Amino acid sequence: MADEWTLGLLQMRCTADPTRNLERAESGIREAARAGAAVVCLPELFLSEYFCQRVDARLFDLAEPIPGPTTDRLSRMAGELGVVIVASLFERRAPGLYHNTVAVLDADGSLAGIYRKMHIPDDPLYYEKYYFTPGDLGFRCFDTSHGRIGTLICWDQWFPEAARLTALRGAEVLVYPTAIGWHPAEKAEHGRAQYDAWQTIQRGHAIANGVYVAAINRVGHEGPPEGGLEFWGGSFVADPFGVVLDKASHETEQLLVVKCNRRRIEDVRRNWPFLRDRRIDAFADLTRRAIDR
Amino acid sequence: MADEWTLGLLQMRCTADPTRNLERAESGIREAARAGAAVVCLPELFLSEYFCQRVDARLFDLAEPIPGPTTDRLSRMAGELGVVIVASLFERRAPGLYHNTVAVLDADGSLAGIYRKMHIPDDPLYYEKYYFTPGDLGFRCFDTSHGRIGTLICWDQWFPEAARLTALRGAEVLVYPTAIGWHPAEKAEHGRAQYDAWQTIQRGHAIANGVYVAAINRVGHEGPPEGGLEFWGGSFVADPFGVVLDKASHETEQLLVVKCNRRRIEDVRRNWPFLRDRRIDAFADLTRRAIDR
Repeated sequence: MADEWTLGLLQMRCTADPTRNLERAESGIREAARAGAAVVCLPELFLSEYFCQRVDARLFDLAEPIPGPTTDRLSRMAGELGVVIVASLFERRAPGLYHNTVAVLDADGSLAGIYRKMHIPDDPLYYEKYYFTPGDLGFRCFDTSHGRIGTLICWDQWFPEAARLTALRGAEVLVYPTAIGWHPAEKAEHGRAQYDAWQTIQRGHAIANGVYVAAINRVGHEGPPEGGLEFWGGSFVADPFGVVLDKASHETEQLLVVKCNRRRIEDVRRNWPFLRDRRIDAFADLTRRAIDR
Repeated sequence: MADEWTLGLLQMRCTADPTRNLERAESGIREAARAGAAVVCLPELFLSEYFCQRVDARLFDLAEPIPGPTTDRLSRMAGELGVVIVASLFERRAPGLYHNTVAVLDADGSLAGIYRKMHIPDDPLYYEKYYFTPGDLGFRCFDTSHGRIGTLICWDQWFPEAARLTALRGAEVLVYPTAIGWHPAEKAEHGRAQYDAWQTIQRGHAIANGVYVAAINRVGHEGPPEGGLEFWGGSFVADPFGVVLDKASHETEQLLVVKCNRRRIEDVRRNWPFLRDRRIDAFADLTRRAIDR
């Protein structure tokens, strides 16, 4: 495998029409491939609006099995273009059993595997615990034609343990499909610090683990005009020392095409050898909720 | 206990004369107390130059027991001023057994306890594995008259597990005495990214855990003029959402006095409830060195 590979991040505005969203994603994937991307990453749940803003049992109709119609279609495209596609979908596993899932489609058109979101939020306008059963596949890394890709999803971003466990499996890049935005009423006061915290903690994962990090967000306002969520875009790629290599707009759709290099991972880890020194003999309590006095 | 408390960070230039360094630290502690600091934090191994730049058995003479002459003296000062002092010392535990240790001296003049550096670096000009046995007390938090203080030391900064385990014990602030700097030959090319990574990963710990983080570094060049280390100062305090509240110079000694508030911890954790959602059922592999394919 060559040292260099290229990530394509497709920051999208998503509508209420799944067919239209899929067509636009496909168009973006083709554009990314033309621009040289070997691994193309889509935002979280890109087939629909971010429906978790409300609690409504009818919305389970948006879910589909994996493999299923969307992964079949994206698999064909991955094989045709010779790219890896990281696609976030609403997975219907069984009646009454749904997950927030990433499918990794390899460049030969096969399904490399799936990751089911492990950390599920539940906060005002992010009512995900209603829709998604927490993942039961653990943390995962996929050995694809274009490198070892670790997959995590949105809320997982805030948990260093998730990044670490994925990196320990050999990931060269942690890919985070995301749907995060501002509550319009909070944006003026807290918006800047919120975006900054979101980017900072993920740059921290890159540094702690010596891996690339790619966060792919949606953009644009969804929901009632007086409320809803303004998705903050700002998709980015950080290198293994936390340097932001490129970052997308906060207002518009954008394709980021970013070159990565395996020698950079080797170089950073050799000079900042954190993996050498972890005190694994003293980490058992990480499986506790809190350590009471 | 009041909601608000004040941290004092004493960014120092350290010389080869321990008596002089201790006197200057005491003078700085008095100044911090006058400025309102309730918890005063000193840089790593402030009693001497950063001797780990070279390997020399005679330098073990710099170590002292804890409790010992320096903690006795600082304890009296803590009691006199009514402040907590976080002091980093070279601990002689037994002949041939030394640690890089923090002593926490409570405001009543008692020794609240010690923490022995768990993660020990060993890299060009940071030959710490020669001098320091890795800590055997685990990660610690001390319930002092001025709040619950978690102690970590320098290289620990790069390990999210260390921050997490200390925070899970109830720490309100993670205090990192530090001695980190630039290799002068690397500074022009890599200096900015190195400082940025160092600050970023610690801001990440603040965000992940909803705690204050205080990093206290030394400043100034030590070692041969054509080499050595230029300690980069830049001590700072981040709040529980990773916002840098204040940051010291990269060139000069400086006292930072920073107000903190327990309501801010409550507020941040209530709105970003990461501790609620950790997948502790899936974290057992954090005690592994790597997860081989």
